[in-house]
Amino acid sequence: MCQLLGMNCNTPTDIQFSFEGFAKRGGLTDEHSDGWGIAFFEGSAARCFIDHRPAAHSPVSELIRTYPIRSYNVISHIRKATVGEVKLANCHPFVRELWGQAWVFAHNGDLKNFHPELKGDFLPIGETDSEQAFCLLLQTLKDHFGIRKQGQAPSVQDIQKVLEPVAKQIATHGTFNMLLSNGQAMFTHCSTNLTYVVRQYPFSNAHLIDCDLQVDFGTVTHANDRVAVIATTPLTNNEVWTPYEQGSFLVFQDGKPINMA
Amino acid sequence: MCQLLGMNCNTPTDIQFSFEGFAKRGGLTDEHSDGWGIAFFEGSAARCFIDHRPAAHSPVSELIRTYPIRSYNVISHIRKATVGEVKLANCHPFVRELWGQAWVFAHNGDLKNFHPELKGDFLPIGETDSEQAFCLLLQTLKDHFGIRKQGQAPSVQDIQKVLEPVAKQIATHGTFNMLLSNGQAMFTHCSTNLTYVVRQYPFSNAHLIDCDLQVDFGTVTHANDRVAVIATTPLTNNEVWTPYEQGSFLVFQDGKPINMA
Repeated sequence: MCQLLGMNCNTPTDIQFSFEGFAKRGGLTDEHSDGWGIAFFEGSAARCFIDHRPAAHSPVSELIRTYPIRSYNVISHIRKATVGEVKLANCHPFVRELWGQAWVFAHNGDLKNFHPELKGDFLPIGETDSEQAFCLLLQTLKDHFGIRKQGQAPSVQDIQKVLEPVAKQIATHGTFNMLLSNGQAMFTHCSTNLTYVVRQYPFSNAHLIDCDLQVDFGTVTHANDRVAVIATTPLTNNEVWTPYEQGSFLVFQDGKPINMA
Repeated sequence: MCQLLGMNCNTPTDIQFSFEGFAKRGGLTDEHSDGWGIAFFEGSAARCFIDHRPAAHSPVSELIRTYPIRSYNVISHIRKATVGEVKLANCHPFVRELWGQAWVFAHNGDLKNFHPELKGDFLPIGETDSEQAFCLLLQTLKDHFGIRKQGQAPSVQDIQKVLEPVAKQIATHGTFNMLLSNGQAMFTHCSTNLTYVVRQYPFSNAHLIDCDLQVDFGTVTHANDRVAVIATTPLTNNEVWTPYEQGSFLVFQDGKPINMA
């Protein structure tokens, strides 16, 4: 199994504090040492850093821990290989382009008897069931909404209406905890383990579980800032994390879940 | 204008020596300081590092200079913005997936009155003419060869036959020096400035132009190793670089140009 970390904000925010604790689970405080990755959106573009080395010891993760990259949407993943060997092609997050937007995806869980018929507009490069699920999600979006020019992607609400039933269908094959973003919003599905915290005014002190590090967000934020952090299990031990209901599909925008039918 | 650096090898090789000199041109020995990027293939997968900061001063390029990543195919680019502002979406190399392979592209030059009709399977995320050209190349390949399953890409020779005339057509719009790879080979076109060197047995000493650094490749290679380095202008001052003929399309495989009709 693997672990997920996501961030969705109403102002460009760096993820260094959360990533500090999360990366430790990649081979130090936990066993997810078969590669890792992190993707940062800037508008509709994304840059993705992946490495086959354990996140706890990777020179690339050392860069991420020390170079503050501010973003509205971030997705990270540390891998414990179950399907597919340890190599770059199997590292999450995966990235594809649709409608002139980068789409970024990471998955935690195993899918059994999952062999979707993929038309070929989006095909896996590696061997994971995760990348197949990602390709199926994007193919479904493309089939439903058709070809759209750059800047004319469907609304977040319309995208959710199409994504949610496909995610639930995929989840019938096993465990499908996933984070997906196109830079506009963070689409998430929970089969078993996902939890989130919304940091907003009045900001408080947060202390990591995986290492002795704390930050007083009141000193590094503005009153209007709002940041949602989503993770497989809580990253801090003095904040209120909200566990997902099993089978739920949540969409985050502007640093909080949006409520939709 | 920008500068290009490519590497194609018959054994996984790191690019640290060449990149050391190349990165200096990104804001130190030359003016290409509007972002940069580098992509490394591992099989059909690629990982791409991009940054909007000048390559000479970017923390990401510091990582690349100190973390040896071995690869058969590498493409790097330093940008002097002409079309499109300085932001991540406009940083080369660009990456897309086709036939279950990552495709990586970087371009040097300006294209005038270039507004290709793109069907929509591959669309630009940023605003550069370069990314439009990349999308046109991939759309042409997809239209010609159709949908192929993972592992069933056309041969390098067949791909060249389709790519070469499109590249020459694009080049009629201005300057089209470009590097393109799918991990199988390095496809290159030169309008004005590209040059290459093939390093093979007996290996010699090489000394960079952009900083006082040299390496004796005889001490760090095996007798069967062969590496082609392609660049906008020579990176070393004591090796024989072969300038491209203007308008030529060269394909590199196993560390050398292949000859085809």
